[in-house]
Amino acid sequence: MSEQDLRERLYLYDTTLRDGQQTAGVQFSVAEKIAVARALDTLGVDYIEGGWPGANPTDSDFFAERPRTRATFTAFGMTKRAGRSAANDEVLAAVMNAGTEAVCLVGKAHPWQVTAALGLSLAENVENIRASVDHAAATREALFDAEHFFDGYRADPGYALECLRAALEAGARWIVLCDTNGGTLPGEIGRIVRAVIDAGLPGDRLGIHAHDDTGNAVACSLAAVEAGVRQVQGTLNGLGERCGNANLTTLIPTLALKEPFRSRFVTGVPAEALRGLTRISRRLDDILNRVPLRSAPYVGASAFTHKAGLHASAILKDPATYEHVAPELVGNSRLIPMSNQAGLSNLRARLAAMGIAVEPKDPRLAGILEEIKRREEHGYAYDGAQASFELLARRDLGLMPEFFEVERYRVTVERKRDARGRMGHLSEALVVVRIGGERKMSASEGTIADGSDGGPVNALATALAKDLGPYQHFIDDMKLVDFKVRITHGGTEAVTRVIIDSEDGQGRRWSTVGVSANIVDASFEALLDAINWKLARDGAKPVAAAA
Amino acid sequence: MSEQDLRERLYLYDTTLRDGQQTAGVQFSVAEKIAVARALDTLGVDYIEGGWPGANPTDSDFFAERPRTRATFTAFGMTKRAGRSAANDEVLAAVMNAGTEAVCLVGKAHPWQVTAALGLSLAENVENIRASVDHAAATREALFDAEHFFDGYRADPGYALECLRAALEAGARWIVLCDTNGGTLPGEIGRIVRAVIDAGLPGDRLGIHAHDDTGNAVACSLAAVEAGVRQVQGTLNGLGERCGNANLTTLIPTLALKEPFRSRFVTGVPAEALRGLTRISRRLDDILNRVPLRSAPYVGASAFTHKAGLHASAILKDPATYEHVAPELVGNSRLIPMSNQAGLSNLRARLAAMGIAVEPKDPRLAGILEEIKRREEHGYAYDGAQASFELLARRDLGLMPEFFEVERYRVTVERKRDARGRMGHLSEALVVVRIGGERKMSASEGTIADGSDGGPVNALATALAKDLGPYQHFIDDMKLVDFKVRITHGGTEAVTRVIIDSEDGQGRRWSTVGVSANIVDASFEALLDAINWKLARDGAKPVAAAA
Repeated sequence: MSEQDLRERLYLYDTTLRDGQQTAGVQFSVAEKIAVARALDTLGVDYIEGGWPGANPTDSDFFAERPRTRATFTAFGMTKRAGRSAANDEVLAAVMNAGTEAVCLVGKAHPWQVTAALGLSLAENVENIRASVDHAAATREALFDAEHFFDGYRADPGYALECLRAALEAGARWIVLCDTNGGTLPGEIGRIVRAVIDAGLPGDRLGIHAHDDTGNAVACSLAAVEAGVRQVQGTLNGLGERCGNANLTTLIPTLALKEPFRSRFVTGVPAEALRGLTRISRRLDDILNRVPLRSAPYVGASAFTHKAGLHASAILKDPATYEHVAPELVGNSRLIPMSNQAGLSNLRARLAAMGIAVEPKDPRLAGILEEIKRREEHGYAYDGAQASFELLARRDLGLMPEFFEVERYRVTVERKRDARGRMGHLSEALVVVRIGGERKMSASEGTIADGSDGGPVNALATALAKDLGPYQHFIDDMKLVDFKVRITHGGTEAVTRVIIDSEDGQGRRWSTVGVSANIVDASFEALLDAINWKLARDGAKPVAAAA
Repeated sequence: MSEQDLRERLYLYDTTLRDGQQTAGVQFSVAEKIAVARALDTLGVDYIEGGWPGANPTDSDFFAERPRTRATFTAFGMTKRAGRSAANDEVLAAVMNAGTEAVCLVGKAHPWQVTAALGLSLAENVENIRASVDHAAATREALFDAEHFFDGYRADPGYALECLRAALEAGARWIVLCDTNGGTLPGEIGRIVRAVIDAGLPGDRLGIHAHDDTGNAVACSLAAVEAGVRQVQGTLNGLGERCGNANLTTLIPTLALKEPFRSRFVTGVPAEALRGLTRISRRLDDILNRVPLRSAPYVGASAFTHKAGLHASAILKDPATYEHVAPELVGNSRLIPMSNQAGLSNLRARLAAMGIAVEPKDPRLAGILEEIKRREEHGYAYDGAQASFELLARRDLGLMPEFFEVERYRVTVERKRDARGRMGHLSEALVVVRIGGERKMSASEGTIADGSDGGPVNALATALAKDLGPYQHFIDDMKLVDFKVRITHGGTEAVTRVIIDSEDGQGRRWSTVGVSANIVDASFEALLDAINWKLARDGAKPVAAAA
């Protein structure tokens, strides 16, 4: 208990709300910024950079309404312009007036950028840095973002270091080395950081700000930490200008769980918060209405998905065979999908998870794999359609009753002018179902929430779910929540693959697949599977056919 | 001219068709594998790993039908099982029987994996490696994938090296060091590769196979090259098991354009092929119907997008201010979002490319930008639908005649039993078109090449193209070649976005978009655009309405 923790403190600086906002297509509202700031604070980052007060109305409003956080709230801005004092620069004043505990000011540390982009003399630029940091540090914790630092160091190490020293001597708590255009590779980052520290700048006052233009933002950040910096800047899910910033969702678990970092450093993120990482990552995508990246390290839906048959069978013996960390540590979970790569042991594990026990030597297992392979050749995909896979297996094992039969259906889509001459469209469906000995006919229009036409699949789904007689109460709480379509190849012909996600009142969600050259027919097949899965899972009793 | 090229040769080994196929949700057909292999060959990779012959029907069929390539075609498999000779192992036989120039065999190089996952003795495992590589190398170029090598080296360097030496001495051209579970960080990769070379294994016989589980697959590959390996394995767009493999789409330009690699190494990818990189990356996503990752290094739509106001204005002075390489070098382009002044000059350039000259101050330009923005908010996407964009601009500029009007249509899909009791489906469409003063009614079934039903969109397309009167000869050579469907959000409601690719007898290919809650109606909108674009481009003369 009394063992002393000799690990050094590493500080995490999040810029999701500032640099992350530069992502093409991303536009936070004030309410969204508040939600993200709260999520970041539960995670345990040390600094939250909220935006640039004065640069746009959203950022100004957000600083006025920002939530209380444990993290140090930081306003971003730029160093003063030439020809006026720091106190008289109204852009800098707007940043200071946001009243945050910390202020981060960006200035250039590359001679060519100073002359080409700013049109200033090199001395004026240094003076702007010094005076601005001095002004901010008088009342706040001040940070200096040394823009283009690595390119600047390559061009003129003396000048680049002079910019850093000006900020340091003016009282900056942190000097952040920025690889602004993202072009420096990790080896070079490490080399330059070591040179900066050798030149007398203290590592515990240095930060790293990397971009992913060569796919190395995480590696550059790690290289800088190994070389001596003690603050890491990044964004959730790697949002940011161009290819994005260093991804904190990747860096945080790497620093916490992987050597040599785990033994040498400690961050403000406790193990409990780390277990919320996957949820926070998905929540950000939810807020931004982005599709979560399946392949994202640690938090992606595929990060612990073992598709190869050989991998899956080893994972069943010991997950450590193909997992470098346990998924639970970051709040993610393991998935072994069905696919043509899968082996028999994979299949048995899946069936067991569905409550279906089959002996290892049961010859029907090979039959199920055969059928999956054959169907995948025709365009089916069971990776994303677990419920259809379960029905297929149940049928092959004789565990699937026939609840009802669809005798026929007809769907019509019409586009024409209404009585007032406005062009509109309308879909309607008619379905004839046989349950036991009884025939039932249902019809429906494809009307959606706002009263407009939702199309033929909607009409078909509504008609099919309208009267299933004795099964009706099983499906009343079913809802179609997503619908995915892709054109694929079944043999030589193009076919349409439809995947439907359904949900019920118990919050269960299941996916089914249909394949046909006809998109409506493919959708119908997936709909039928969705209903049949629900009936089988909820133990509906089939109605005996009339004699 | 006579300056000698002292750069060392680096070999690129692509495993998109094998490890890339382990991506969750990815399922290549034989035709798709052929298309990808051809694209890889134009790029100039040295090895194309096509799959595992015998592991599944697709891979077996693909090897039987594989295209001729300049790249060395490679079959993947595993080393022989214990208790039989290499010649008598039927799994290995299937790999050899594919008849490729090279064979890559995987075996374990980690003592715990050997005992835990395989249940073999350590000596048996080494013997399996030796005998299998010996068997393959007798008739082919042999490669050995040392699975779990880095973890194995950490656990027992002596044994891990023994596995490598067994393969080397048995005649393997390449020993590939695999970080199979993706958990090793770049610093450690560099350290272990140097130790392997110090132990006597020649760097020009070593390869690196990295995974992205810590977001470092590219950095690990670069670290291994710096430490001495001369073969790099990876996949296009970083496809692969779990978080994916090292992304060749990122590595190739980094090796070609960035120091220290550019001066020290040369790959088989010429500068001309590098300019095709973005196209190849997008083509792979097209084939797989995946949404291209906007933030992808080098090839992403956002990789050279400058959203920050300060960045955009500096870029106008000199692109090198915020770009580490020129986008043209990888076939990508710079984008300054339409929301600012630069958007207008972008738009003018695009219109000029379509042969439409507009004055810089023309107020209609702002109107076009406004309409694009509004439509994109409703789910339209003009990035991938240039022809629809052109029609929109032509209409706003008063340059688009109304060739015909669709008064109404009706599409029906029926599923029922035929006279012999077999369940089948049939689609039919009826379209009423008004051309000038004349009404024309056409009907069609949605019959495809093999005589079966191709669905409602097919029926509609056929009916629409059946009789367009004076325009008929313009559209007779039109063909619908692709059809992509995505569910997206238009405001708050989910809508369907359909993109249709059309082709004509001159080999022109154009894309159009339609958006609606009704999938048939969205398709119809895209079909109409496709026909109208062809009529406008070919200079069809509108028929005057009857008085």
